[in-house]
Amino acid sequence: MRIDIITVVPALLEGPFSHSILKRAEDKGIATVRVHNLRDYAGGKQKQVDDYAFGGGAGMVMMIEPIAKCIEALKSEREYDEVIYMSPDGKTFSQSMANELSLRQNIIILCGHYKGVDERVREKFITREISIGDYVLSGGELAAAVVADAIIRLIPGVLNDETSALTDSFQDGLLAPPVYTRPAEYQGMKVPEVLLSGHQAKIENWRFEASVRRTKERRPDLLSGKEL
Amino acid sequence: MRIDIITVVPALLEGPFSHSILKRAEDKGIATVRVHNLRDYAGGKQKQVDDYAFGGGAGMVMMIEPIAKCIEALKSEREYDEVIYMSPDGKTFSQSMANELSLRQNIIILCGHYKGVDERVREKFITREISIGDYVLSGGELAAAVVADAIIRLIPGVLNDETSALTDSFQDGLLAPPVYTRPAEYQGMKVPEVLLSGHQAKIENWRFEASVRRTKERRPDLLSGKEL
Repeated sequence: MRIDIITVVPALLEGPFSHSILKRAEDKGIATVRVHNLRDYAGGKQKQVDDYAFGGGAGMVMMIEPIAKCIEALKSEREYDEVIYMSPDGKTFSQSMANELSLRQNIIILCGHYKGVDERVREKFITREISIGDYVLSGGELAAAVVADAIIRLIPGVLNDETSALTDSFQDGLLAPPVYTRPAEYQGMKVPEVLLSGHQAKIENWRFEASVRRTKERRPDLLSGKEL
Repeated sequence: MRIDIITVVPALLEGPFSHSILKRAEDKGIATVRVHNLRDYAGGKQKQVDDYAFGGGAGMVMMIEPIAKCIEALKSEREYDEVIYMSPDGKTFSQSMANELSLRQNIIILCGHYKGVDERVREKFITREISIGDYVLSGGELAAAVVADAIIRLIPGVLNDETSALTDSFQDGLLAPPVYTRPAEYQGMKVPEVLLSGHQAKIENWRFEASVRRTKERRPDLLSGKEL
């Protein structure tokens, strides 16, 4: 998989892709993330990428021309399955969307910044608009990093232990059960005895029940229509 | 405001806080973000911060002892309003939660990594668990950055133009209207004429109607119970 991220603030994306599992995915040749500075595609001495909104009002708008040049340059090199725009009015990102996108080959992610991109960018180039949640960020960069991380970790071979992703919250529609590690007792707080019992069937049963209980308490919406 | 983020992968957070508006908030003395490496609070030569889960299974669990030491060291220096744990089973983050948290003075954010933290950490220290959405990330670091960004940009003086945050999506329960900037025509695609008219009342009216239309099409759930 290859993900090309287009941004006006590439420095915001320095950390996430040069460490941890995304770095490992890159080193293993499983997933490549390239960050493109939109300013490299801007004309004139000023390398202008944004301008005032027609009709007035606060906040700058990202111009169509540099974005068009960047996307067209990328498309001339390979075919893309999706050109995604990160925006609070996009479709809310979910684990099932992450699963779906993890099967794609090449993806472009355009990060909005300031007041967003010129609407004509969305009409002409964007195949899918994604929001990571009902809140506003100062730009789409962190949102793009979130989407890339959620997708890439699902590709087989990225996580050390593949079963690890399968037991995550949401994959089975349940929240994960509580987890414990050493010490078995900390300032009077003990680990549930069953987890120390070595009795695997009982442990699995306890975990499933704890998952269901936690989901009922915290996210009953995930259970609607499910028989447990 | 001061936000202390506790993590086992501090490098993941290098970009977000040293650029863009978060950097500006720091420079202006409005908001300070400090990233703490959990390993600095770990004992032994190995600086161990995680261990196998009791009861077996894939994935490592973050140990209570280094976390306790780090949180206690921070608490000995100042009072904290919240000790937040980023977790997929936390309460879903929203703009109203961002508004609420932007009024706090001091916040600790603990980033889960691997399979999460020992449950006793949550029982003993955590005042609020937050999820940024229904998907799993390789760690809580990006989620913590998202929350910090969403909160800090709301503090007066952080954005250059304070009205900019007020016209964002979600602040009035509506998605933002489309925006346009120069050129007025791009490859035959024109900006809506009203935006070029200079007639401010008509422009505001068009924007409001476009907001409502977009919200109806994309997020009718935001409108439920609202009269428009």
